[in-house]
Amino acid sequence: MPKLTTHAVNPTFHKVEYAVRGELAIKADAFREKLKEPDHDLPFDNVISSNIGNPQQKGLDQPPITFTRQVAALMEWPALIELAPQVFPRDVIERAKELSREIGSVGAYSHSQGVPFIRQSVAKFIEERDGFPSDPSHIFLTAGASAGVSLLINALITSPKSGILIPIPQYPLYTASLAQHQGLPIPYYLDESKGWSTSVSSIEAALEEAHKEGIAPKGLVIINPGNPTGAVLDEETQEKLVHLCEKNHLVILADEVYQDNLHRRDSLPFTSFKKVVSKLQSHVPLVSFHSISKGVSGECGRRGGYFECTNFSDDVVALLYKMVSVTLCPPLTGQIGVNCMVRPPKLGEESYELWKKETDTIHASLASRTQTMAERLNSLPGVSCVDSPGALYLFPQISISKKAREAAQAVGQHPDEMYAHGLLEETGICVVPGSGFGQKEGEWHYRLTCLCPGVDDYVGKLEKFHHRWVDQYGVE
Amino acid sequence: MPKLTTHAVNPTFHKVEYAVRGELAIKADAFREKLKEPDHDLPFDNVISSNIGNPQQKGLDQPPITFTRQVAALMEWPALIELAPQVFPRDVIERAKELSREIGSVGAYSHSQGVPFIRQSVAKFIEERDGFPSDPSHIFLTAGASAGVSLLINALITSPKSGILIPIPQYPLYTASLAQHQGLPIPYYLDESKGWSTSVSSIEAALEEAHKEGIAPKGLVIINPGNPTGAVLDEETQEKLVHLCEKNHLVILADEVYQDNLHRRDSLPFTSFKKVVSKLQSHVPLVSFHSISKGVSGECGRRGGYFECTNFSDDVVALLYKMVSVTLCPPLTGQIGVNCMVRPPKLGEESYELWKKETDTIHASLASRTQTMAERLNSLPGVSCVDSPGALYLFPQISISKKAREAAQAVGQHPDEMYAHGLLEETGICVVPGSGFGQKEGEWHYRLTCLCPGVDDYVGKLEKFHHRWVDQYGVE
Repeated sequence: MPKLTTHAVNPTFHKVEYAVRGELAIKADAFREKLKEPDHDLPFDNVISSNIGNPQQKGLDQPPITFTRQVAALMEWPALIELAPQVFPRDVIERAKELSREIGSVGAYSHSQGVPFIRQSVAKFIEERDGFPSDPSHIFLTAGASAGVSLLINALITSPKSGILIPIPQYPLYTASLAQHQGLPIPYYLDESKGWSTSVSSIEAALEEAHKEGIAPKGLVIINPGNPTGAVLDEETQEKLVHLCEKNHLVILADEVYQDNLHRRDSLPFTSFKKVVSKLQSHVPLVSFHSISKGVSGECGRRGGYFECTNFSDDVVALLYKMVSVTLCPPLTGQIGVNCMVRPPKLGEESYELWKKETDTIHASLASRTQTMAERLNSLPGVSCVDSPGALYLFPQISISKKAREAAQAVGQHPDEMYAHGLLEETGICVVPGSGFGQKEGEWHYRLTCLCPGVDDYVGKLEKFHHRWVDQYGVE
Repeated sequence: MPKLTTHAVNPTFHKVEYAVRGELAIKADAFREKLKEPDHDLPFDNVISSNIGNPQQKGLDQPPITFTRQVAALMEWPALIELAPQVFPRDVIERAKELSREIGSVGAYSHSQGVPFIRQSVAKFIEERDGFPSDPSHIFLTAGASAGVSLLINALITSPKSGILIPIPQYPLYTASLAQHQGLPIPYYLDESKGWSTSVSSIEAALEEAHKEGIAPKGLVIINPGNPTGAVLDEETQEKLVHLCEKNHLVILADEVYQDNLHRRDSLPFTSFKKVVSKLQSHVPLVSFHSISKGVSGECGRRGGYFECTNFSDDVVALLYKMVSVTLCPPLTGQIGVNCMVRPPKLGEESYELWKKETDTIHASLASRTQTMAERLNSLPGVSCVDSPGALYLFPQISISKKAREAAQAVGQHPDEMYAHGLLEETGICVVPGSGFGQKEGEWHYRLTCLCPGVDDYVGKLEKFHHRWVDQYGVE
């Protein structure tokens, strides 16, 4: 009998695509291994993983928030409170003791929706953010936002003709989850010429198209702030979107994991869909996702996050509980990360000054890097880039000449893939081609994160590669 | 527009059943809340969650392994190495430094299969255990064994008529995953009269039945040591099972999460399926699951585990990688837990004595509690209980009188459910009825963990309840 081969594997597995950790990321890993060889012949000394929003990875090294890590260390080994009391701030010790009372050991399974006390702290955070009530029993702590998104996409697929409206460009978790759970994406297009704005008319056009094809739309995914676009929605548009969902009986899936990554907070603030739905007293069902992986927390490796269900019946919440109970509970360290994110140190507490300094630094450097990168990308021939006001990414458009298109075709790649492979091979910078997120026919982009600390050196490499590319292929 | 109601939810969600955290566990949680009220009228002072193998939960309080927690604390806040060096053993500091070099920050996403260095340590553990090679590139670290099981069940379902052989009684993760991923369980029966043994003929009978119903068998689930049965397979049976899978083109799904919970290690040792398959030079595809949640580790809340693929083509491994990459990576704290489980302190290292004492104590008390509980259960009228040589559970059979059957029918419950509800209501002990695991028609069981430290008091409550039940309903 031969080995297990791919024809024996679920056909849905073949359809799933997730470019963020796809071919280019695997190639980048191989280069990273090769760099360890003393006589490698690579034209760069380090690989920069700009393909993924992973702030604390080696080479990017965004420092973790000290408060979170101190609380987590005490939760791991509570004896430290007695053995090394002088090294922990008082508020850290108090928080760890409070969490220990509520959780017990971090080595025990918690309630499958997450520790009730931590869900209460999430509800309080939402209430203070929005000014409207939040029900802890309709909140689920999760292993990052991804786990929740996958569950909810699965929940809404009631037949092979069920569809979910997905923005283009999108974060590919959505199409991957739809492929896995046998639902259909209904693409709607964001408007690059208006800073990647979301329009009701574009969604209505997509709905009409879906109806023609016999697809039953079940939900609308909104990523705000946008990924990969960085766009931040205004409240007026959000209200229109709520009315559109009311009219079309759609569940809103609001991916709000970048709600704290705002580069122009005063002119372009974040408003949650929960607040808009509450203010309008709408009955539209809404799921809001948040995460500790982004924001200033950047705690990707803990796998923590939550979703809040609004206008869901208790019976549906019970069904979701049953589903998450099968895998028992989200990681306790992620849950502790959620508690620290929604209840940071307050003014007057011992940890406050350091926390303020750490978070201010992260906000400021991300905003300044994003602006610098957008400016310099925009000054390159054949590149145009929306100066993103939120999230962690830029999504520049690159014009592709006929010569480049033909060269790409000859090697069996899309032009943006060929661009990304060239960039990786020549500079060690790993980005994701626009085709991994979706783009209009005939347009080409790539996504890169704004997390790299040595921005001058980094953008210098991008520029040098781009000029080399333009020398070879010209500009359209 | 009304709230989102259950008819809008995926029909597979309605089919999933997971009794371990089902109705009784929810009722137990409600009692736990009620006990906080000073004038509650409950006839007990605490709830004992014997429904789930959760060693470190409040009330059970199996202590964590100090070595693991010390390493984890240093990984959370590496500054502790400088700030409080005197409180950490030298080998803990060395391990934390080594892991930090390999991992970087625990707040960063790792490789989606898990940190390569930790997968190497798993491969070394497997090689030392079995005496056969293990390939780290075919190992996946997971968020507990459950996440891996769900992925592999999903992978093997290629059509709505795909089936997986499931032991009866089983751990309900298997039927729940099959329901979610739209595959069919093919039940085969374990032989209670022979200590819950597994027989080839019982599996062959199930295969024949499946073929008659047009179900295509894809895999065979073996839980060894058994859950809920505690049975430990002998190597001869394992060899027969490998041959059966070769003949019938079945993938073996070997759930080996209790491999370190052995109460009679000398007479009934654990042999991995990896070893048997390797020894036979068989080409049967095998997935072996392990976890940090059980054994002496008991670190359920960290969510850590791994699976190893044997006789899988690289292409299938690449497909599995793609699927796990969508949710990015398993929790780093779980991965660190895996490293500590597969590389415990060695003789001569500073942490060894304490580690030895802690693990010996856990092994001894679990073995002695299991024996005591089995003996006392067997002495009750109408109860027979296999004295489990492994895992964390007992699965006693209770004889049900006609009067009890009629009473159960009158309240719309199975007799074992009525028994479990009565036990919870009268004593605060939460167990899971046998119907949650599957049992032969007309037989009734329940599963309880052997984790409760106050075994005399605990079994005393069980006995008192049982006598009260027998007084009311008699014995068959």
